[in-house]
Amino acid sequence: MPNSNAVPSRPGTIVAMGEILVEIMATRVGQRFSEPGTLIGPFASGAPAIFIDQVAKLGSPCAMIGCVGDDDFGVLNVERLRGDGVDVSGIAVLKDATTGSAFVTYREDGDRDFIYNITNSASAQLSVANLRDDLLSKCGTFHVMGSSLFSFRIIEAMKRAIETVKTNGGTVSFDPNIRKEMLRIPEMRDALDFILDYTDIFLPSGHEVTLLASATSERGAIDELLKRGVKEVVVKRGAQGCSFFDANGETHRSAFKVQELDPTGAGDCFGATYISCRAQGMDVDTSLKYACASGARAVGVKGPMEGTATFAQLDTFLQSATE
Amino acid sequence: MPNSNAVPSRPGTIVAMGEILVEIMATRVGQRFSEPGTLIGPFASGAPAIFIDQVAKLGSPCAMIGCVGDDDFGVLNVERLRGDGVDVSGIAVLKDATTGSAFVTYREDGDRDFIYNITNSASAQLSVANLRDDLLSKCGTFHVMGSSLFSFRIIEAMKRAIETVKTNGGTVSFDPNIRKEMLRIPEMRDALDFILDYTDIFLPSGHEVTLLASATSERGAIDELLKRGVKEVVVKRGAQGCSFFDANGETHRSAFKVQELDPTGAGDCFGATYISCRAQGMDVDTSLKYACASGARAVGVKGPMEGTATFAQLDTFLQSATE
Repeated sequence: MPNSNAVPSRPGTIVAMGEILVEIMATRVGQRFSEPGTLIGPFASGAPAIFIDQVAKLGSPCAMIGCVGDDDFGVLNVERLRGDGVDVSGIAVLKDATTGSAFVTYREDGDRDFIYNITNSASAQLSVANLRDDLLSKCGTFHVMGSSLFSFRIIEAMKRAIETVKTNGGTVSFDPNIRKEMLRIPEMRDALDFILDYTDIFLPSGHEVTLLASATSERGAIDELLKRGVKEVVVKRGAQGCSFFDANGETHRSAFKVQELDPTGAGDCFGATYISCRAQGMDVDTSLKYACASGARAVGVKGPMEGTATFAQLDTFLQSATE
Repeated sequence: MPNSNAVPSRPGTIVAMGEILVEIMATRVGQRFSEPGTLIGPFASGAPAIFIDQVAKLGSPCAMIGCVGDDDFGVLNVERLRGDGVDVSGIAVLKDATTGSAFVTYREDGDRDFIYNITNSASAQLSVANLRDDLLSKCGTFHVMGSSLFSFRIIEAMKRAIETVKTNGGTVSFDPNIRKEMLRIPEMRDALDFILDYTDIFLPSGHEVTLLASATSERGAIDELLKRGVKEVVVKRGAQGCSFFDANGETHRSAFKVQELDPTGAGDCFGATYISCRAQGMDVDTSLKYACASGARAVGVKGPMEGTATFAQLDTFLQSATE
């Protein structure tokens, strides 16, 4: 059993920075975007935005830094986050940009196809000019999503934010959340590597554990990560549960059984719940239980941010859940 | 009655150049994009694309120059235009861009609200590199939509295309189709003014007649335009019909009575039908009759490009239509 005293999370505001999007969903499995059909949306989305919304729902003080356009997609996101308790003062509303969007459709084989307006959206304007030192210096945990690192401007801002957080005694959590196209760009791989150097809590999906390591086995990669200075590694395995590793050992949990309606955002909810619970002083086992409940609950709800939950909702879920 | 011998259209390919988009439509009047709802789409769109699709449906040889992303929105547009008979060899498929999109919702008062991804889309990459001299040198009529002139790169390409067309004896038709934001940018107004210098057939909406003239009355502006070298002015007045002016006189038509379902694209269909009929040697009266039928038919169909029609469909419409 890992030593829960080794936990690097500290109380204080949890801050996420990065893309804020809307998602438009096809309604039929197998629907293509090469012909008209019925869609639903816009839904609030963006991995760091989903993360911070879930953090807010669990009652942790939190803030978001990012950019939206001066349009109703931006209003949708900002009002949603504000309503759920996120400090949105770090979200800039840009006159000459459009809020990012993602169109998603599910294939018969369960895979998803996307059309993105992200790198050409307001979210791509995020730069060091958007950094809020007042928010970052009192930050307990700064959370980075790998999906956010799609421009050099953003990478530069992320590096500066991490430096401010670290200098002031905060910790960094990192969900690689990698789009495979990113690893083909050497500078993107470098950026992920840089973030990892400052990471206290690493939250990869199963297939991502070895992506940034020289070891080819999961165990070898975990050892490398811990040696490198990562204090906790939490591996998200979807329907196969999750695993926790630190210098003192490891622990595993199976997932709760649920019918998958929409996996988008489930990993973000899992990570947010883990970070939030740890920041609130809960031990690893309790934090993992809530994280699994949060992820499981999220896959049962349509819409990327629609599955975020309060502790009351997670407790209700846990009462009738089976592993 | 104007002298139809003054007509500047000549046989030969009709070419349009500019934005290619998809449109996503809200399904309920008053629906806002600040909350989730049911949408339909994507529908093929973009003013010059709608124009050229309508030209193709009337059997005129035609081609489109523009850019789409390497995505299903691009496939939708290219296959639609190709299927309707447009030469799509001038449409570039860009790897690193997303096909443009527009979200539209109707207010209770009949006005429309949009969220655009156009200036940040593949369509914004259009430049002189996309010009196809083989298409332009054999071009009978080159059609310009003012909505396309949203970047200096595109304006430069448009100027060069017009020079090639004119040098080879082709004519230029111009629908100002102005978004009001554009006139606030002095360079955009200059660009519209430049296009007007080369325009043979000018197709403004009623409120656009005086926008680029020093005269404040419609009649004064028309006289200015004709003196400036425009050979035909066709004023589109929606439900109030249309007016034709040339050096020899004027003629007016009332509109056909239809129930308005979706006005998007109706002006483009009107213009395309007028240009196509004239290029096929029809007289002004017949061309205006078909143009009015085309516009009227288009407002009765949902989807910006869904209302384009063949002569057979226009003749069927005319058999039961009342003015």
